[in-house]
Amino acid sequence: MKKVAVVGVGMSKFGELWDYNLRDLVVQAGVEAIRDANLEGSEIQALYGGTMASGRLIGQEHISALIADAMGLNPIPATRVEGACASGSLAFRNAYFAIASGAYDTVVVGGVEKMTDASTAEAVTALGGAGDQEWELLQGATFPGLYALMARRHMLEYGTTEEMLAAASVKNHANAVHNKYAQFRREITIDDVLNSKKVADPLKVLDCSPITDGAAAVILMDLDKAKQHTDNYVEIVASAQASDTLALHDRESLTEIRATKIAASEAYKQAGIGPEKIGVAEVHDCFTIAEVMAVEDLGFFKKGEGGKATLDGETKIGGKIAVNTSGGLKACGHPVGATGVKQIVEVAWQLRGQAEGRQIDGVEYGLTHNVGGSGATAVVHILKRR
Amino acid sequence: MKKVAVVGVGMSKFGELWDYNLRDLVVQAGVEAIRDANLEGSEIQALYGGTMASGRLIGQEHISALIADAMGLNPIPATRVEGACASGSLAFRNAYFAIASGAYDTVVVGGVEKMTDASTAEAVTALGGAGDQEWELLQGATFPGLYALMARRHMLEYGTTEEMLAAASVKNHANAVHNKYAQFRREITIDDVLNSKKVADPLKVLDCSPITDGAAAVILMDLDKAKQHTDNYVEIVASAQASDTLALHDRESLTEIRATKIAASEAYKQAGIGPEKIGVAEVHDCFTIAEVMAVEDLGFFKKGEGGKATLDGETKIGGKIAVNTSGGLKACGHPVGATGVKQIVEVAWQLRGQAEGRQIDGVEYGLTHNVGGSGATAVVHILKRR
Repeated sequence: MKKVAVVGVGMSKFGELWDYNLRDLVVQAGVEAIRDANLEGSEIQALYGGTMASGRLIGQEHISALIADAMGLNPIPATRVEGACASGSLAFRNAYFAIASGAYDTVVVGGVEKMTDASTAEAVTALGGAGDQEWELLQGATFPGLYALMARRHMLEYGTTEEMLAAASVKNHANAVHNKYAQFRREITIDDVLNSKKVADPLKVLDCSPITDGAAAVILMDLDKAKQHTDNYVEIVASAQASDTLALHDRESLTEIRATKIAASEAYKQAGIGPEKIGVAEVHDCFTIAEVMAVEDLGFFKKGEGGKATLDGETKIGGKIAVNTSGGLKACGHPVGATGVKQIVEVAWQLRGQAEGRQIDGVEYGLTHNVGGSGATAVVHILKRR
Repeated sequence: MKKVAVVGVGMSKFGELWDYNLRDLVVQAGVEAIRDANLEGSEIQALYGGTMASGRLIGQEHISALIADAMGLNPIPATRVEGACASGSLAFRNAYFAIASGAYDTVVVGGVEKMTDASTAEAVTALGGAGDQEWELLQGATFPGLYALMARRHMLEYGTTEEMLAAASVKNHANAVHNKYAQFRREITIDDVLNSKKVADPLKVLDCSPITDGAAAVILMDLDKAKQHTDNYVEIVASAQASDTLALHDRESLTEIRATKIAASEAYKQAGIGPEKIGVAEVHDCFTIAEVMAVEDLGFFKKGEGGKATLDGETKIGGKIAVNTSGGLKACGHPVGATGVKQIVEVAWQLRGQAEGRQIDGVEYGLTHNVGGSGATAVVHILKRR
């Protein structure tokens, strides 16, 4: 396989962006990434886009051709990739394969979701399409409900507490204060989380990622070409993905995401390192319990100890492993198809020393972890500093 | 790039399949393909799925993880690729890249759409998401309406007649009689087409592809491995894709699909042959005018002469170039995400000498041509006989 680098990154503001449509958001992120890469649009050979539910949210499928059109990149090949909330990472991964195969040497990846044009009920229904429609959603399960089941089981098996879950949200809000693109740039306390409205017991509003508009983009380039083009690249040293059943009832365990464990194991093997070498990680905290499971399943902490480690500050900036320096899905926001690409953007900024106000010193390896639905898809990437 | 072969193909019946859900259809096609390849499920390393609008048609996104689950293929990576009506070809193309990169050597590609669980109005609205929602569909344009504009302009510029368009439908129905998987296995006449109900003048019901349930699957394998595994492979010698504006009003011409021309030119270059070497072609006849434009844009006939050539029988089995021996989208049926994969299945059968009742003698090269929407995406593949 040819080796591949990230040579440019960009993103739009994340938030409730009433003044921008989907085209506006992808152009903002895409133009920033192309400028950051010091390229002209005409040097881009193909486009991959990640979007989860544009059909239901804004009535528009065929979204990557639309993005290519909006960015003035026609007639390059434009391909949408979907894997629910992991759509952005899957777009990134397939762009990586396209370059690794030798078919292209410069490819743009965009992730986008325009969620606030739909009503909250419509958005919740659309997001439900990430789970098992026939076995879960038609029976009344919602996504907070599914993750609440996992949280209850984790609390039962490992003594995880609501305070421990809340600590993930508090940390991510604190990190987002320093991220000018984030949706919620304000600190909150554990009491704020515990006293916020119940959504699906034990999860409260401040345990849940929000509904968000936003886009993120990165430029990938063949590594040999990247080395000639710029001093400002980061190398992709692992790309791994795994699947599981859509429905929770078919899984052996409710307290782990098996697809994460398999993808992480494969990613560490590809990179030739273990989790102890990772200096910064963007993980999929769609709910606080998801971050607690992620830091365990990714091997940063032993199974059952993720909650305590979070409460003890071990996942803060300056802790054992800095998790979600961007603010994560909780505080940076979660425009579903954009999230996986935004994770790459944040890790690239960290590895390039450009994460203003939240920079980790001396970080050599960064990891991204993106989950689709309640864990039927998991994607892990590892990036390395130049 | 590593070279890649098709080593197994399969499909479900195409039609109004009230007794099967989406899972059933993909399992039927997938199991047939795996058996045809003489493999065990455990030998499959990754899955790509093409689906256009499962979110709107059956409330289910995250469709490739669901397929992997239904086929018992967890935990292999499962990725959905979408490009409207070209979704199947894009899934095939990205599986091809994944193998060409060296990441995997055996990958299954499935295409599926379950359309008849939605009302016709819901299906038409969902299909509309392939065009430009903001500029076309919200203004009242439907897909038959968009292609009717192209037909009118083609008639004006080149003297193409309604009889010439009808001849494409008549031929495809005649071919489908010999395809046991086809939705409409009955011959029709030009008068039948001309006297059928108007949908969008000059297009009548029998100029339009139907709403269909169905799935198709193929197994791709690294060519070197395929040669050791089987005598029954076909080689992929070209994979090309191009994009255009979603909205018709932004295009320079209404009488060609520019993305088809660009993708075809690139495909012929990759294969090192011209259109005269192609013995069989599955082209995207979502409407009869689409087939007429396709046989021109692919270089089989000069611009403006596609209609006359069709009426003269030059695209029949035994003509200059056999087009849509499967029955095409018109008569085999058009389960949107499945169509691109079904085209590969049909061409593979032709190249392996297994197209019972409709076999082209001595065919060495076959071509597939799959269009997304009204031409914002076009994908061309060329396969070669062993």
